Amino acid sequence: MIVTKTIELATQGHCDVHDITDQIARQVASSKVTSGTVTVFVPGSTGALTTIEYEPGLLKDLPKVMEKLIPSNVAHQHDQTWHDGNGHSHLRAALMGPDITIPFVAGKLTLGTWQQVVFIEFDNRSRRRELIVQIMGE
Amino acid sequence: MIVTKTIELATQGHCDVHDITDQIARQVASSKVTSGTVTVFVPGSTGALTTIEYEPGLLKDLPKVMEKLIPSNVAHQHDQTWHDGNGHSHLRAALMGPDITIPFVAGKLTLGTWQQVVFIEFDNRSRRRELIVQIMGE
Amino acid sequence: MIVTKTIELATQGHCDVHDITDQIARQVASSKVTSGTVTVFVPGSTGALTTIEYEPGLLKDLPKVMEKLIPSNVAHQHDQTWHDGNGHSHLRAALMGPDITIPFVAGKLTLGTWQQVVFIEFDNRSRRRELIVQIMGE
Repeated sequence: MIVTKTIELATQGHCDVHDITDQIARQVASSKVTSGTVTVFVPGSTGALTTIEYEPGLLKDLPKVMEKLIPSNVAHQHDQTWHDGNGHSHLRAALMGPDITIPFVAGKLTLGTWQQVVFIEFDNRSRRRELIVQIMGE
Repeated sequence: MIVTKTIELATQGHCDVHDITDQIARQVASSKVTSGTVTVFVPGSTGALTTIEYEPGLLKDLPKVMEKLIPSNVAHQHDQTWHDGNGHSHLRAALMGPDITIPFVAGKLTLGTWQQVVFIEFDNRSRRRELIVQIMGE
Repeated sequence: MIVTKTIELATQGHCDVHDITDQIARQVASSKVTSGTVTVFVPGSTGALTTIEYEPGLLKDLPKVMEKLIPSNVAHQHDQTWHDGNGHSHLRAALMGPDITIPFVAGKLTLGTWQQVVFIEFDNRSRRRELIVQIMGE
């Protein structure tokens, strides 16, 4: 059994982190699929999905770490082509990855207590995002 | 057909790497599912899953690389909140990701010869972990 | 319904990036599965899968970023064991990950307009690769 849904987000840009756990949990619960996996996917190359403890400290730490790993103020060849200044956004998104697959059992995601599913907006401007949520199981 | 199992681990902390390939392979073999995917997931925000060649050299190299990318001795805002000193653990886990999905065919994982599935404990203390292993197929 | 296919690639090594979007899309279209997920997997520990905008600028930027994050000219313990000089290849592949799962609907991958699925060859020599493409759905 396969159910496809979407999650819509309005983002700010520059590494803002969005907790989408409740939306995924509700879509799984309302799908009538009791056991299986849910795959969430970003259609776009400047955002990423992962899990993190969604608390104010880490929401400040993560942008700092990404800035250190792949700085925004370095000239990238991508920007020579498009002049949109978001080469670092693409590189960060490729490193972290656009997909996440989470098992669920008895209609409930198998997440840890302090673990949230998050979308990270790496682009350098606000965006409207429509994430794909594919629920598969029995 | 969906089969859910778990893998239990006792970890040391500080980037110890656990080879869980045999446990996954045995669970797939005993599941009666012959073709499909197995998704392994960490319920928790300070551990990660990936594949690596599990040999003594890389088991020393990986902690060094992670220490360089996201140092443990930097003050993180997360630690200001919780005072548990594991901000770097959360950030490393978010970067590497909590899930892996591996296809299998005729009951056998499609891994390379020198490729092992590993759990990496990024927390700064020993932990008991219960990983989710969701087998889906026909 | 499960269909397993493969993609064959001849790679150069040293972080060359291969756009495999069309091959995956064709295999999904010809599979008779209309809705579900496709999991692509690298059997091997020196290559990785992600998505990126496949344009000439980023193809130059990505190798530079990886060289900065995990340099090729640093002595790794892995190389002390095997003397093949590709310790950095293993570490980069473990960080980026060997798998990607993409939902598809009505026979079409749910990718963004400027988003391509890519295989990245992190090894330090040319390789023949056979990627696994597992299509699951209804």
